[in-house]
Amino acid sequence: MADHQEPGSEADEAQAAAPAPDRDEDDFLPRRDLLDRIDAAVEAGDTDALNALLEPMHAADIADLIERLHGAGRRAFLTLYSDQIDGEILSEIDEAIREDVLEYLPREVLAEAVREMDSDDVVDLIEDLDEPERAEILAALDDSDRAAVQQSLAYPEYSAGRLMQSEVVTAAEHWTVGQTIDFLRAEEWLPEQFYHIILVDPRRHPIGYVTLGRLLASRRDVPLRDITEDSFRTVSAYAEEGDVAYAFNQYHLISAPVVDSDDRLVGVITIDDAMSVLDEEHEEDILRLAGVGEESAITDSVFETMRQRLPWLMVNLLTAIFASLVIAIFDETIQRVVALAVLMPIVASMGGNAGTQTLTVAVRALATKSLTGSNVWRVVRREAIVGVLNGLAFALVMGLVAWIWFDGASLAAVIGIAMVVNLAVAALAGILIPLGLEKAGADPALASGTFVTTVTDVVGFFAFLGLASAVLL
Amino acid sequence: MADHQEPGSEADEAQAAAPAPDRDEDDFLPRRDLLDRIDAAVEAGDTDALNALLEPMHAADIADLIERLHGAGRRAFLTLYSDQIDGEILSEIDEAIREDVLEYLPREVLAEAVREMDSDDVVDLIEDLDEPERAEILAALDDSDRAAVQQSLAYPEYSAGRLMQSEVVTAAEHWTVGQTIDFLRAEEWLPEQFYHIILVDPRRHPIGYVTLGRLLASRRDVPLRDITEDSFRTVSAYAEEGDVAYAFNQYHLISAPVVDSDDRLVGVITIDDAMSVLDEEHEEDILRLAGVGEESAITDSVFETMRQRLPWLMVNLLTAIFASLVIAIFDETIQRVVALAVLMPIVASMGGNAGTQTLTVAVRALATKSLTGSNVWRVVRREAIVGVLNGLAFALVMGLVAWIWFDGASLAAVIGIAMVVNLAVAALAGILIPLGLEKAGADPALASGTFVTTVTDVVGFFAFLGLASAVLL
Repeated sequence: MADHQEPGSEADEAQAAAPAPDRDEDDFLPRRDLLDRIDAAVEAGDTDALNALLEPMHAADIADLIERLHGAGRRAFLTLYSDQIDGEILSEIDEAIREDVLEYLPREVLAEAVREMDSDDVVDLIEDLDEPERAEILAALDDSDRAAVQQSLAYPEYSAGRLMQSEVVTAAEHWTVGQTIDFLRAEEWLPEQFYHIILVDPRRHPIGYVTLGRLLASRRDVPLRDITEDSFRTVSAYAEEGDVAYAFNQYHLISAPVVDSDDRLVGVITIDDAMSVLDEEHEEDILRLAGVGEESAITDSVFETMRQRLPWLMVNLLTAIFASLVIAIFDETIQRVVALAVLMPIVASMGGNAGTQTLTVAVRALATKSLTGSNVWRVVRREAIVGVLNGLAFALVMGLVAWIWFDGASLAAVIGIAMVVNLAVAALAGILIPLGLEKAGADPALASGTFVTTVTDVVGFFAFLGLASAVLL
Repeated sequence: MADHQEPGSEADEAQAAAPAPDRDEDDFLPRRDLLDRIDAAVEAGDTDALNALLEPMHAADIADLIERLHGAGRRAFLTLYSDQIDGEILSEIDEAIREDVLEYLPREVLAEAVREMDSDDVVDLIEDLDEPERAEILAALDDSDRAAVQQSLAYPEYSAGRLMQSEVVTAAEHWTVGQTIDFLRAEEWLPEQFYHIILVDPRRHPIGYVTLGRLLASRRDVPLRDITEDSFRTVSAYAEEGDVAYAFNQYHLISAPVVDSDDRLVGVITIDDAMSVLDEEHEEDILRLAGVGEESAITDSVFETMRQRLPWLMVNLLTAIFASLVIAIFDETIQRVVALAVLMPIVASMGGNAGTQTLTVAVRALATKSLTGSNVWRVVRREAIVGVLNGLAFALVMGLVAWIWFDGASLAAVIGIAMVVNLAVAALAGILIPLGLEKAGADPALASGTFVTTVTDVVGFFAFLGLASAVLL
């Protein structure tokens, strides 16, 4: 693809970016001066120089480069480079900006790119597109590829059926090692990466699989049946992708055959797909816990960023006003003992933090399926005990601080008791709210944080100010 | 391993737990009634029944089962089952409880278990053990395995050298496909799973690799050199495990050869190891953001849980007291206008939430290396603009609420201005604090949350109360 040879030095540089002794982590990223040179080539409108610079780069790194560009910069880049974008780069580009990129692709480049892609990547590409673009891409595919993509799209979103690729290597159940090797040698087309040969019966029901290592190590006359793996398990095309990813992680699967409702083989899911799903689920958890829309990306525009965050801030405003209403009940008490206004945020803040700690551990445990029926009550009990003990510890510390600061033993007692109450409630809210959401079929990470801090603010203010008005007045 | 045949029905049930059409997600977990039957067998002290129930279960599920047991229950289980624990189960058990389990293993069972483990699993098992236990396990290994484990342990913690397994399948660079297949058929020992044949020169420098699929599909007389993969890259044994995991994810690697400082092949890292590292890093991020020790596990005892959480709550107490000192400056103002005490938590809370949103997106982007030198200023600018715009939006809403609630236009203006200031500061703190920590070589997730909310509490209280005392009095 490089049109001339001079920039060989840059090519070497990019190669050197592969991890090697005595290199630091930044070597996993394209080097800064390479990026500068790419910028310069784009600015100069020098297609040849740009192609030569990008030629040695991995598709994933080129995709990242495109993601990091913005506005005019991205447009300029795509105008120069669009005819070099292949299926690999296209499947690496983040969903959020894919439509932008598609607009710049000459139709024949796009058609060529989708023809090289595995069916799962095509599905991933077109499932979010509007009808005209979708139809255009489908039209570019061969009949059999198109049928495979359409079959995949017929399964629900986020199902194994959407995640699988239809390119599968199968063998008849009665074949020997030798027959299988001869078949593979004769086969014109094989997937880029495959890790198992799936044994199927005449009705295409998968009945076992053989690892390629085992196949290679066995004599030609050995029947495939004799060397199948114990770990064989199939995945329903209707299974939820999160559960599939869990199974890959839990059972160290490398690929898994996917079957339809008649138990017939329809595709295969490989570990890189499972890894992406795990990554996305983690992203969702961490963003949802923080009250950020789960599709947030660092590449979002100002407008998109606001759209992701405003709703949660609005919810937070409502709950903050709700907590303020509790304070307002006790406004006369505060007017008489202004120390209460000084100290009350401490009680609320400690509750909020303790609740968030419990919540995060609970959400993570639910996500990894390590908090289940069999240990849930033990965990709830542990959290409650920890809440009370932490409450007692901080009651002591904060009681002393309040006593010294405001010279009042009753005030010290009030803040101490409020601290124990709020930290115990925080612990319970932190575990019971995500469990409740999970039970109700919702994502335990979603809005949990807001619920928990609402509880700890309200309880914190109420316990502290309520006790104070009873004791101090 | 099953000593009698009657419990075949339970075995079938556990098999049925494999994902299949029309099954829901809970089928990925051992079924509740199976767990009850296991409990009953443990209680009855019935070793045969227990073995029969566990026989069809995957090692990973048995490990989870042991993790979920506690105290006397776990002791009873291990007493009955300890002689059935093999290398697979042992490598699946969580670090936190591994030492407990080791205590129960008869020495010869332990020796047998470690002999079946790959070298990376042995390293993982013994790296946290004390000297006597470590020596005992090393003594159980064959000389060559022991040497491999010791070589691995010589690399720094969290390095690729610790993560790799020394079991590698290599071929001489001049071999043909046929020679390689003959070699594999003749070889007595091969790793359980391997995905590439690594070509080495006579000095054991890796010079390329061939996928097993490619090997199988090629004629016997094809030289290996002609079918090596372009994606070939080596990893230094000294590389940080997080960077290795990043490379696997970014470049869709399935295995990567590890080289020492002389570029000689010392082992191979496979994708399941990379997946575990990614998972651990996710866990660290999410727990650190919440101010929970990153080794927290749902299986921890009350004491361990407190040890993980108290320090962060203590830090939070100090910062909360610091924020209270700001309030104390304005105690006279509050006494005169008690509405300030009612409204001030709203300003602080909105700042805290907005800051956490920005922070979480930034920490996640840093973890996935998508926030780098080339786009950092654009992102900072975006966050600042979003902060100001969100501030203006909520200034309007909250100004109106305050106006209606307390019937004061000046109070409405004060809370509006404070809101804009605090949300702008929140946005900047949310992005600059993690960037600063990263720059300083610290984990951007660590303590960021506390820093950010301290900033937003202090600025929120100061802006609101300071403005109020200037304007309202």
